[in-house]
Amino acid sequence: MKDFIFHNPTKIVFGKGKISTLGEEVSKTSKKVLLVYGRGSIKRNGVYDQVVDSLKSYNVEFVELPDVKPNPVLSKVHEGINLARKEQVDGIIAIGGGSTIDSSKTIAAGFYYDGDIWDAFRGKYKAEESLPIYVVLTISATGSEMNGGAVITNEETKQKYSFWSVKSYPRVSVLDPTVQFSLPPIQTANGAADAISHVLELYFDGTQNVQILDELSEGIVRTVMDSTNILMKNPTDYDARANLVWSATLALNGINGTGRSGGDWSSHAIEHSLSALYDIAHGSGLAIVMPAWMKYVHREDVKKFARFANRVFGIDESDREKAATMGIERLKDWYKSIGLPVSLSDVNISAEDIDKIVENAAARAPFGKLKKLQRSDVKEILKFCL
Amino acid sequence: MKDFIFHNPTKIVFGKGKISTLGEEVSKTSKKVLLVYGRGSIKRNGVYDQVVDSLKSYNVEFVELPDVKPNPVLSKVHEGINLARKEQVDGIIAIGGGSTIDSSKTIAAGFYYDGDIWDAFRGKYKAEESLPIYVVLTISATGSEMNGGAVITNEETKQKYSFWSVKSYPRVSVLDPTVQFSLPPIQTANGAADAISHVLELYFDGTQNVQILDELSEGIVRTVMDSTNILMKNPTDYDARANLVWSATLALNGINGTGRSGGDWSSHAIEHSLSALYDIAHGSGLAIVMPAWMKYVHREDVKKFARFANRVFGIDESDREKAATMGIERLKDWYKSIGLPVSLSDVNISAEDIDKIVENAAARAPFGKLKKLQRSDVKEILKFCL
Repeated sequence: MKDFIFHNPTKIVFGKGKISTLGEEVSKTSKKVLLVYGRGSIKRNGVYDQVVDSLKSYNVEFVELPDVKPNPVLSKVHEGINLARKEQVDGIIAIGGGSTIDSSKTIAAGFYYDGDIWDAFRGKYKAEESLPIYVVLTISATGSEMNGGAVITNEETKQKYSFWSVKSYPRVSVLDPTVQFSLPPIQTANGAADAISHVLELYFDGTQNVQILDELSEGIVRTVMDSTNILMKNPTDYDARANLVWSATLALNGINGTGRSGGDWSSHAIEHSLSALYDIAHGSGLAIVMPAWMKYVHREDVKKFARFANRVFGIDESDREKAATMGIERLKDWYKSIGLPVSLSDVNISAEDIDKIVENAAARAPFGKLKKLQRSDVKEILKFCL
Repeated sequence: MKDFIFHNPTKIVFGKGKISTLGEEVSKTSKKVLLVYGRGSIKRNGVYDQVVDSLKSYNVEFVELPDVKPNPVLSKVHEGINLARKEQVDGIIAIGGGSTIDSSKTIAAGFYYDGDIWDAFRGKYKAEESLPIYVVLTISATGSEMNGGAVITNEETKQKYSFWSVKSYPRVSVLDPTVQFSLPPIQTANGAADAISHVLELYFDGTQNVQILDELSEGIVRTVMDSTNILMKNPTDYDARANLVWSATLALNGINGTGRSGGDWSSHAIEHSLSALYDIAHGSGLAIVMPAWMKYVHREDVKKFARFANRVFGIDESDREKAATMGIERLKDWYKSIGLPVSLSDVNISAEDIDKIVENAAARAPFGKLKKLQRSDVKEILKFCL
């Protein structure tokens, strides 16, 4: 087990009807906040009204930044920073999933930075100040509601990059599973694939002798799968939804990463190029890329891939190579079973497009922990995705 | 899954040699601290010197409260409060396990309270102020290094009670697994039994449909057992020690308790009477009481007890009653295998003593979540312990 520091100060308020507690929490630090949200679903499902009612009862003023889109972009962040400064807000509330939370984190850090906050993503600025951030989660996927990370796409340069800061942990995140009852099944499925990918990026980073973390990882994957299977048939099953919501948060709140070597993150690096160039959903992109990456690298730690097959799918692991391969196929089959694409052709990307994706992804190569990937490796993995 | 709030602000610094970071952390809040520790092992194994060196290099002054004993007592806490006030310290460092940490938490809260801090244990005072608390953990067992709870024995009234406060979470806890290399095997075993008991108190509280928490619970139990088995043969196996250390912390840092009904805690209530009256180690007491409690109540949720048997010992769970019974026996056998007592006769307590233990424990009856226990139930469970 590797050395680590674990410190996660986010307060989680979990359960039905808990959005009503938001106003009191926010009023502890803020008098006027920026509400950041997406393209209107929160107005249809009642979440917006619940937030506004709670803020009003604690006399918290607010201005609004709507229309944050999936694969959120830097220009929208700039708009948010300008608005936050003009209106002199002293806090930000993200109402949504990873896109709105990550946009909010970036606005909250950019508020205090004189340069272009993109500097934080390209490693030229360490975000050490931030407005207080609050979250009302409406889709479980990224885990951003309980960590200090954010991913943003610079649409001019077509780069989808991330930053992380100890100052960017939300103060409070409200997780009401019932607000996800109305999600289209494909969004639940995308979220599930994203959560599983976070576990596997950490799990398959080559670190040995971390039983407690492996146990936790395998337990999250099993729970995400079992809960998603139930939700595909009955999207309003409360306990299945609650298990999925909390599992997706635990998948990337830091605990699962303790004692490891930081995770591999190659699949994310490649997928980010895919979604930056083609605007496909991150979860769908991961369902395509991750099994291909697993197939390409599994011989680097075949024992662990066999263990995964055994613990998640009950496959006999005595023949490790066989078990590893079967486990990867079963994962792919499962993605298919919940309606996700598992090949580039499923999302209408053909062999001729591969060079363009390689070009974008390889700008940061080499990357990866289990196997350091060069440009040529990325190309081979993408060929496995066809 | 039940609603919950999760908020754990403790920073964990984990790894070999990390005690050297303590001075810098402490200096963020404190100029002069009270060092609380036990009966000298830290002077023999070098931990004391590491702490003092680190404090000196950050100019943190200190005074000392040595000789805290296992099953820590209220009179020692009073002595600590008086010393802390007289010396006007502004922080406390616990160097040790649950006994020193819990004493430190109580001193830190008592420092600000005009009455007798025992009031916090008997529910007459809500501890809302505390000196900042830092921990250097030297034995993994109670999880107190990452939660807000404390257990103290009032030796006058022979009551072993607990209190919990949001203000009592340590700021920083340093977990260096190598400092536990020199523990006598029986202490490692006691710690393992304590950690497992925390998982099981939560696991068997009757809450249904909490798969992610059950998975986490079962993973912790398997890891504690596997790691302890290795350590009984080789106490200096770093990875086994590290897995045990982190598992014991995760067993009671709050995550495992989310979504549940608060835990059962009957076995703890009964064991606290045992250790208050006979001063046996808490872990040993739990190894005696917990299987007896499980046997007595398992029909209240036989499905869950069968699941436990299956997930932890690989027992076929198709016949639930049989599986449940076998699982309990296997747990008892495991305790025996690591040198723990599993009956009252193993610790020289006889049938004639039972009424005295019942008398002490029943003062707080009825208690328990899975089954509400009356005085008569406590007596039956103690008979199972003979």
